[in-house]
Amino acid sequence: MAKERKSAISPKRHEDYPEWYQQVVKNADLAESSPVRGCMVIKPWGYALWENIRTELDIMFKATGHVNAYFPLFIPLSYLQKEADHVDGFAKECAVVTHHRLEADADGKLVPAGELEEPLVVRPTSETIIGETYSKWVQSYRDLPILINQWANVVRWEMRPRIFLRTTEFLWQEGHTVHETKDEAWDETVKMLEVYKTFAEEYMAMPVITGEKTTEERFPGAENTLCIEAMMQDRKALQAGTSHFLGQNFAKSADIAFQNREGQRVHAWTTSWGVSTRLIGGMIMTHGDDDGFIVPPRLAPKHIVILPIIRDDKDAETVLSYCEKLKIELEDVNFNRVPVRVELDNRDLNAGEKGWSWVKKGAPIRLEIGMRDIESDSVFMGRRDQQGKSGMPRAQFVADVAGILGEIQDNLFKKALAYREEHTKNIDDLSKFADFFTPENPEKPETHGGFALSHWCTNPNCENKINADLSVTIRCIPSSSDNEEQGKCIVCGEKSPQRVIFAKAY
Amino acid sequence: MAKERKSAISPKRHEDYPEWYQQVVKNADLAESSPVRGCMVIKPWGYALWENIRTELDIMFKATGHVNAYFPLFIPLSYLQKEADHVDGFAKECAVVTHHRLEADADGKLVPAGELEEPLVVRPTSETIIGETYSKWVQSYRDLPILINQWANVVRWEMRPRIFLRTTEFLWQEGHTVHETKDEAWDETVKMLEVYKTFAEEYMAMPVITGEKTTEERFPGAENTLCIEAMMQDRKALQAGTSHFLGQNFAKSADIAFQNREGQRVHAWTTSWGVSTRLIGGMIMTHGDDDGFIVPPRLAPKHIVILPIIRDDKDAETVLSYCEKLKIELEDVNFNRVPVRVELDNRDLNAGEKGWSWVKKGAPIRLEIGMRDIESDSVFMGRRDQQGKSGMPRAQFVADVAGILGEIQDNLFKKALAYREEHTKNIDDLSKFADFFTPENPEKPETHGGFALSHWCTNPNCENKINADLSVTIRCIPSSSDNEEQGKCIVCGEKSPQRVIFAKAY
Repeated sequence: MAKERKSAISPKRHEDYPEWYQQVVKNADLAESSPVRGCMVIKPWGYALWENIRTELDIMFKATGHVNAYFPLFIPLSYLQKEADHVDGFAKECAVVTHHRLEADADGKLVPAGELEEPLVVRPTSETIIGETYSKWVQSYRDLPILINQWANVVRWEMRPRIFLRTTEFLWQEGHTVHETKDEAWDETVKMLEVYKTFAEEYMAMPVITGEKTTEERFPGAENTLCIEAMMQDRKALQAGTSHFLGQNFAKSADIAFQNREGQRVHAWTTSWGVSTRLIGGMIMTHGDDDGFIVPPRLAPKHIVILPIIRDDKDAETVLSYCEKLKIELEDVNFNRVPVRVELDNRDLNAGEKGWSWVKKGAPIRLEIGMRDIESDSVFMGRRDQQGKSGMPRAQFVADVAGILGEIQDNLFKKALAYREEHTKNIDDLSKFADFFTPENPEKPETHGGFALSHWCTNPNCENKINADLSVTIRCIPSSSDNEEQGKCIVCGEKSPQRVIFAKAY
Repeated sequence: MAKERKSAISPKRHEDYPEWYQQVVKNADLAESSPVRGCMVIKPWGYALWENIRTELDIMFKATGHVNAYFPLFIPLSYLQKEADHVDGFAKECAVVTHHRLEADADGKLVPAGELEEPLVVRPTSETIIGETYSKWVQSYRDLPILINQWANVVRWEMRPRIFLRTTEFLWQEGHTVHETKDEAWDETVKMLEVYKTFAEEYMAMPVITGEKTTEERFPGAENTLCIEAMMQDRKALQAGTSHFLGQNFAKSADIAFQNREGQRVHAWTTSWGVSTRLIGGMIMTHGDDDGFIVPPRLAPKHIVILPIIRDDKDAETVLSYCEKLKIELEDVNFNRVPVRVELDNRDLNAGEKGWSWVKKGAPIRLEIGMRDIESDSVFMGRRDQQGKSGMPRAQFVADVAGILGEIQDNLFKKALAYREEHTKNIDDLSKFADFFTPENPEKPETHGGFALSHWCTNPNCENKINADLSVTIRCIPSSSDNEEQGKCIVCGEKSPQRVIFAKAY
């Protein structure tokens, strides 16, 4: 039996997926748990990814007519209470500020002092505080629409935190819009979901299914929640972004009302939509392999890492100056509108260790440059989406680099899409459904699971039964128009208007 | 007597400067007080300014070798206590999280529940939490330097908030660096102060004096605090940015230690430096006039506003399509590396109201385009740094626009510099000093005050006396090398090594 190649990450994905994930986060230098329970420190490589996500999404938001603004971190408790479903949804995970200074007690120990008359909640999301502000801004239909986005941190107390996927504090963007009519608000909800889909697929190289949440899975206070759902390499679903049609619920609770074209005072229609640092977790679990992370080129903090190979000290200057020149030459090339981002790694480390550090971080292209390459005016290239390395004339590489990066981007998407398709099944029989979600061999859970496209009668009882029995939920009611086949509910056998996606989920 | 021109902002600066400031903030649509006491809502025009500040500073930080990262919002109380001076400095203004959920009480009212074992402080600044993390990252001199910056929100409870200048929550950046040697840390402290000076002068068009704070005015826990100080139009000083040399104080309290080149375990040297949304307040008070804000072009959310003048509905399409084309043509021009930012304002408002709204917002250039201008292929331009408007051939305007924007930028700087110089005096006599800071006519405070360059013996008692008697503080000990004249302390007459800047301050 051939011996399995040793991988840079241990355990491998099929050995222990959750632990593999933690090890990739650590070895790729993306983030770490902070001493503050549930919070994370996002390290420079991870934060640069978030900066790129933010930059690209922000361009898409602005192109669809939105502007940014900033609202307070704190929400008075009374505001949160105004929308009943909303507060129910978040009450269990609110960090509460109750004091506004520290004072030494009799033993000289600092304790909270200056108790607030009304406690403040650290925003878990900002519908209520923003709604309160909008109610003052909106007087007439001429003040509409309001199309505002906010980049911010939010806090939802987490008992079982996992870096990027579920943390007490996380970074996100939250769009909050106000419209004159129901149709306009609905169009906005759909439009932003499309923005998320485009971003997920074209930038993150992560295929997603768009659809609608069931009543059970909606955002607290929303009339409808649309979402994008992706499949990770353990075949579980990741909800990667949501766009909420809030109807007039928040407009009524915060009294966002205006004089309409007929001169009547009516309530507005609102939406909200958001994605978070969770997207980074999604990229890791979509593209990572047993050697670490693989960053989609369009979001990579560095597209190319140049590794000078110096076997003899006397060659150091020649090699470094050749690498410097190559770096400048490459930075003159554009990839996806921006100059190619190049790192010249001249840390004082051995070449192997250095090379592997960039494999684990997932840099799309590594170039090793030694005297031999300089003499033949060539580069020795390792692509993160392929095994092995290959030589290539320098000029050819410079001419082709944007194309190679584009090819890596495409390969990552295609591979992820093929994986999802391989593990998406139409299932019409409850015992086969149960088998699909129950590993035959618990040692090898990877032989089972995925997305089951099955019929559902729209009754929450059937949905809840599946969840109770198998820990499987309806991820979404897909929005694609070819999903109009009628059938029988996989649980109760009653009439079903369409197939929905069942999966285990993060 | 000539009747004074009516201004767009009431009161005028000389009538009531603090109220004028609030009115500019409001009329320029920059921000507003939020229902959460002491916090502000930064509106789109104000936030776009902050985005531009962030973009430009970030480029400068990266060019000086820094990377961004993100650390937790919450600091365990015990961490804050580790550095005694530090906690003393911030204890009175800390927002404290004591509970992590909400629960209904007997009356169904939501109250804080889930009391934390250790209270968490919402970061007022992050030296302690970042230091704790760095202590794990730093093992050897090879791990140094660490050059990290963070863009974040911070909270310092404010009893007397003023928008942008002093708010409970504000946005800022905080650099936190770790170095092998004292010299390196000192060089970093100085280098970042220079970055701030360059940014303030070249981008904000706000002249600043660089210098060192006295012991009394230092950052809590720092060995030395360097600062940039600017003069506002009420002649008070605004501290616009600080760069702290922290010595080994925080390295010792958080145990940031490493094996040095000689194999000994030693403590590192650290710095921190920051600027905040306060800079927006500084720009308003440096450049604003009685008609509102004036935005320095290099940071303007929009450089040019096109105002279509439609006197007859039948011309609407002609005028709007001409304006659209002009917009595209102008966006093809670069100013300070970036495409010119153009707004075409076709809101359904009367032309006068519309024009004034952009005067108050401070857009550098307004173009009014009506049928007459189209027929003569010209534009009618209002520059925010000048009174009146003037016509100009369209092609000439497009060719000159970057130059005009540059000229406005220069004018703003020169005007602010002249103002500061006019109101900076060498004063060597205590009674003249008192006169300088005591308005002869309290109705006209603008006839007095400014920066007094006076001698000081370095004794805190003399500094405190001036503060107690006149509410005047030492803003900084200027760093310019031509400030080496010796003299006698203006308070006690003892020997003084150099003049320092006394002023009233924000």
